[in-house]
Amino acid sequence: MKKILVIGAGRSTSSLIQYLLFNAEQENWFVTITDQSKELAIKAANNHERAKALAFDVNNDEERNRLIDESDLVISMLPAHMHISVAKDCVKYKKHMVTASYVSKEMKMLDSEAKLAGVILMNEIGVDPGIDHLSAMRVIDNIRNDGGRLEAFETFTGGLIAPESDNNPWNYKFTWNPRNVVLAGQGTVKFIQNGKYKYIPYHKLFRRTEIIEVEGNGKFEGYANRDSLQYREIYGLKDIPTMYRGTLRKPGFCRAWDAFVQLGATDDTYVMEGSEEMTNRDFINSFLAYNITDSVELKFKHYLNIRQDDVDLYEKFEWLGIFNDTKIGLKDATPAQILQHILEQKLSLSPNDKDMIVMWHRFLYEKDNKFHEIHSSMVVKGDDQTYTAMAKTVGLPVAIATKMILNGTITTPGVHIPIEKEMYHPILNELENYGVHFVEKEVEPRFY
Amino acid sequence: MKKILVIGAGRSTSSLIQYLLFNAEQENWFVTITDQSKELAIKAANNHERAKALAFDVNNDEERNRLIDESDLVISMLPAHMHISVAKDCVKYKKHMVTASYVSKEMKMLDSEAKLAGVILMNEIGVDPGIDHLSAMRVIDNIRNDGGRLEAFETFTGGLIAPESDNNPWNYKFTWNPRNVVLAGQGTVKFIQNGKYKYIPYHKLFRRTEIIEVEGNGKFEGYANRDSLQYREIYGLKDIPTMYRGTLRKPGFCRAWDAFVQLGATDDTYVMEGSEEMTNRDFINSFLAYNITDSVELKFKHYLNIRQDDVDLYEKFEWLGIFNDTKIGLKDATPAQILQHILEQKLSLSPNDKDMIVMWHRFLYEKDNKFHEIHSSMVVKGDDQTYTAMAKTVGLPVAIATKMILNGTITTPGVHIPIEKEMYHPILNELENYGVHFVEKEVEPRFY
Repeated sequence: MKKILVIGAGRSTSSLIQYLLFNAEQENWFVTITDQSKELAIKAANNHERAKALAFDVNNDEERNRLIDESDLVISMLPAHMHISVAKDCVKYKKHMVTASYVSKEMKMLDSEAKLAGVILMNEIGVDPGIDHLSAMRVIDNIRNDGGRLEAFETFTGGLIAPESDNNPWNYKFTWNPRNVVLAGQGTVKFIQNGKYKYIPYHKLFRRTEIIEVEGNGKFEGYANRDSLQYREIYGLKDIPTMYRGTLRKPGFCRAWDAFVQLGATDDTYVMEGSEEMTNRDFINSFLAYNITDSVELKFKHYLNIRQDDVDLYEKFEWLGIFNDTKIGLKDATPAQILQHILEQKLSLSPNDKDMIVMWHRFLYEKDNKFHEIHSSMVVKGDDQTYTAMAKTVGLPVAIATKMILNGTITTPGVHIPIEKEMYHPILNELENYGVHFVEKEVEPRFY
Repeated sequence: MKKILVIGAGRSTSSLIQYLLFNAEQENWFVTITDQSKELAIKAANNHERAKALAFDVNNDEERNRLIDESDLVISMLPAHMHISVAKDCVKYKKHMVTASYVSKEMKMLDSEAKLAGVILMNEIGVDPGIDHLSAMRVIDNIRNDGGRLEAFETFTGGLIAPESDNNPWNYKFTWNPRNVVLAGQGTVKFIQNGKYKYIPYHKLFRRTEIIEVEGNGKFEGYANRDSLQYREIYGLKDIPTMYRGTLRKPGFCRAWDAFVQLGATDDTYVMEGSEEMTNRDFINSFLAYNITDSVELKFKHYLNIRQDDVDLYEKFEWLGIFNDTKIGLKDATPAQILQHILEQKLSLSPNDKDMIVMWHRFLYEKDNKFHEIHSSMVVKGDDQTYTAMAKTVGLPVAIATKMILNGTITTPGVHIPIEKEMYHPILNELENYGVHFVEKEVEPRFY
């Protein structure tokens, strides 16, 4: 019997654990489900005969060592910065590990030790990163094997609200960690277009967007992710002239979000004076110049260049209630924390809401002196608030990779991300059974 | 004989050392002038019989201990972050110390030790900070002693080019450390206006300026300094409704500088790919969207909202040569370093140029149910490239404070800044002999 240790049983693990328990009998697995909250772990284990639930604090060194030593494979669904102690113990006890997070510097440094120990540390096998790697590499390898040369690769992913639950002027709800949404894009964006390096500062990011049409799903708007450059090397596209990774929203979101960026309302670097007693209106006014007569509304419009007839735009702010006299009640809070608090009143999911993950790739390539362009897209909707699109697309690739490691399909030790043919073919094929599939089509090549 | 140790003999110390040497005989001083460059120290000592010159590296612990132990008072003209080791040794050997820099956290923490040792650590006694404190506190105390209550205090200082040397479209030259000019304002600005806390993010700072007229010297433009709030407590104005500290430029500078901020060209947090081979034009283009046909000039104008008839504005950029094919030649440089390099070609001082320091205070106060407003301003021009306005206004207050400590006029030990009557009266009076004087006038009170 193979013993799987799952660390973390929060919202994103429902589909992962469902898959593990459903296949436990056939694959001869025993699944230990742990979480800081024993309640969550018990709920996830669901009295399954091949599972047990434990309360577990990953910072408890003794407990962590013992649990990992007792397992054959560890799945860490912790926040990204908490994986490293788990990874070190996995190498020590020669246990494999799977995570959905980006490879950190510390993780990368474990590569040679992991190889020596014969241990697989598989990372970036969720949705983004994860399914993006799998699906992009499948097309990229096809093009290359067919004698094509990649000219441009663009890829966008968005965690959004499904159209049937989309009932607010932002066409957006928090389907994932709101704090990450509020802080998204801070720092400088770097990418390459037609061989030219391009840099976008944060305060321009939400005005440098691209409109994308995903067949059958309408238009979306993409803004660039922080660093697109590193994937040139990872994908074996060192000399590709255009490489761009981004995030999708519905059109109109970015122009409105930019208002908060321009105000400075997403700043997380300082605490606002008297935040506890502040109202929404005070909050907005603290970013606008003092004026003895003008209203906060007019100052806001004027400062942000919102014209009288920008009705769709202005409605978003009114609907959020940012000009209301509602008390915020957060002590010693940063602007970003206060903004998150205001947004959460309005942009949180309702009990029957369904989420949606949209992914879109564009490949421009040259073959036999002719240009070709392929678009590949995936749209996954959540079933309900448990088996969300996010939980499915993050958890299922993790679960399938786990199976492949335990049944000996994946064998190469070291720190990995899923870019090899041996991974993307079986995982993408199996994902299709769960409604996760890509639509590819060739289109007339475009040049910018 | 009193022994003075001067650490640092760079550009800003000419007037300081001139004062010390001129008064050495009468005051019975011996002045040891040190610098990393022996040449600079020798030049500054000028073979004066009461001076000697030494090469000295402040990081050499043994040498630093010995030199401080041999002195009665140490003047540190090092960059701000290098004072602290000197200050600690001064406390250890019970020697007084004078600096023109802001009090750092580490310096503040020496207060009780300095008091125990009977040592005076005098800071912020240059121009800004320095003369601003002296001149503001004189007016503030006068108003308070006269029964007035401060409603608003605004203060602006600028290191500028004198009108007779002002011959470029920016009406600006680097009269001080260019790197500090390029990075100025980064972070979030905090101030209070009419009892309302106000915050300005860096990307809006240069569009939230105020126009100020300094009598007889025309108009200037002020942008806010990073933190105006802390001076409420220091100046004994804890409940003042308006407190604003800022920096002066000539009108038009800030609107143009904002273009660099908007582009992201002042970012010092990352290295640009291929910076060595880059031209000025490539540099600017790297912040603009790729386009196969449009010129860099047009993309620049469109992105930054520069209209065809904004001639004065656009001329500034053309004159700098930012669209030229000049090679930059800096390896692994940040945007801020590249921008500084481009600006230094055009904004550096010519041999006969004179600099100018402008300071302006506004005091609004209420007395006997009537409002009053006082403006106080100082304009100092440099004599030449040695005795610059900057060197005079930074160095002379340091020198005078040194004299006052050594002759026993200032006696209270601890970490100080010059806000006491016992300091501002004699120093401001003596500064008048050197052409550093304030013009005060009462004006019709303004309310925003």
